Amino acid sequence: VLLLASSERDRLYVVLVSTRNPLNIGAAARAMNNFGFARLRVVNPYEVAFREARSAVGAAEVLRRAGEFAGVAEAVADCQLVIGTTAARSRQLRQPLRALPDGARMIRSRLRSSRVALLFGPEKRGLSNEDLSHCHWLLRIPTCAEHGSMNLGQAVAVCLYDLVRTRSSQPRPGKRKPASAGELEAITQRLFETLRVSGYVNPQSAASTEAKVRRMLRRLEIPAADTDTWFGMFRQILWKLGKAGLE
Amino acid sequence: VLLLASSERDRLYVVLVSTRNPLNIGAAARAMNNFGFARLRVVNPYEVAFREARSAVGAAEVLRRAGEFAGVAEAVADCQLVIGTTAARSRQLRQPLRALPDGARMIRSRLRSSRVALLFGPEKRGLSNEDLSHCHWLLRIPTCAEHGSMNLGQAVAVCLYDLVRTRSSQPRPGKRKPASAGELEAITQRLFETLRVSGYVNPQSAASTEAKVRRMLRRLEIPAADTDTWFGMFRQILWKLGKAGLE
Repeated sequence: VLLLASSERDRLYVVLVSTRNPLNIGAAARAMNNFGFARLRVVNPYEVAFREARSAVGAAEVLRRAGEFAGVAEAVADCQLVIGTTAARSRQLRQPLRALPDGARMIRSRLRSSRVALLFGPEKRGLSNEDLSHCHWLLRIPTCAEHGSMNLGQAVAVCLYDLVRTRSSQPRPGKRKPASAGELEAITQRLFETLRVSGYVNPQSAASTEAKVRRMLRRLEIPAADTDTWFGMFRQILWKLGKAGLE
Repeated sequence: VLLLASSERDRLYVVLVSTRNPLNIGAAARAMNNFGFARLRVVNPYEVAFREARSAVGAAEVLRRAGEFAGVAEAVADCQLVIGTTAARSRQLRQPLRALPDGARMIRSRLRSSRVALLFGPEKRGLSNEDLSHCHWLLRIPTCAEHGSMNLGQAVAVCLYDLVRTRSSQPRPGKRKPASAGELEAITQRLFETLRVSGYVNPQSAASTEAKVRRMLRRLEIPAADTDTWFGMFRQILWKLGKAGLE
């Protein structure tokens, strides 16, 4: 179950400003599709790029429905909250800056009742100060500051993932039912017998060796469904050992 | 501050299995670089793709240091935990499946002391059952099930982001110091005076209009740093209004 209902996802507008690379438009649309967002708007795209992007894998419907706008103002006019993404590096920013995942939580809460535009700038220079002036606040993906800016398609994917990701919960117990203590002890005995028959066990320290084997098997977390297989394996080994002893 | 220390990030090995598209190898390396991971291993890559990827933006160092392996077993041999990523769609899975962000938390905890391999399969078909058999458990990115698989570079970016993302905290108060009540009231008076001089205020209901203006301004959350500008604007308007009145 995703964190956002479908009606809430439908209030988010991904706005790509002056994108130049068709692969990036396609990648943005594909990530939108993956996470269940449908509303793409492109501002002043490089026309060829926008046309070529339409062949991107798994993004055809999003791209077909995408709106095209001449400027940021027109693209966000019907939205109540406008957020610009930024690498926040070299620039004096004039708006509040929030990082994921806190920023995503604020967006989620606004999507309950408002249309929210999330702006992504062109590949080389990001959103201009004029673009940013349309934004209520700015969103940053927490990267290693010294390690360069993110690829556009990847930045879109990370932001959308963080918007919808499932609530973090305590780790659920694995679906595998573990073997019971009785089953474990039965396996322990088979293994110990195997070791004894193999001459691994020094009779003088047999008790401590048995305890060691017991502890060792408890650390394995053997699933209940595997116990028959373990029995079968040891049975076979013991049979073979017995046969060897007889010969 | 990222969730993982640099020493912990250095224990994560991103393993790309049979990747075909050089752009995807480059994108994976770039995302690693963005989030501060350095250890890339490629298994049986399409040789041309691997060579071409080396020109990817912001990923040169990661790609230069990448290890190349003939099989999954060799690529993960020195890791204590091996995790396969999967879209978990059409297949009967034989390992426990965990979704982000829970899976990421488990990986973080293991990275404190263990080397962890995170496997990504080839573009079209993902990791094979043989590849998956090397894995302790499988990791899934929670997408809209019906909306197709993720692009490889975007999947890597989302997984690595979730590993390092900062702890979610209560929203911090914005950095902007809000105007004091006194400053707000001074602005209220200027605005009210402006409205009065403009003839907006009906003398019979002046008190209720003033209260309305006061409440309206309290809803704006005016920053302290902006109060002088607001004063200046009203001063100018009042001056102009006064001048108009005199003529």
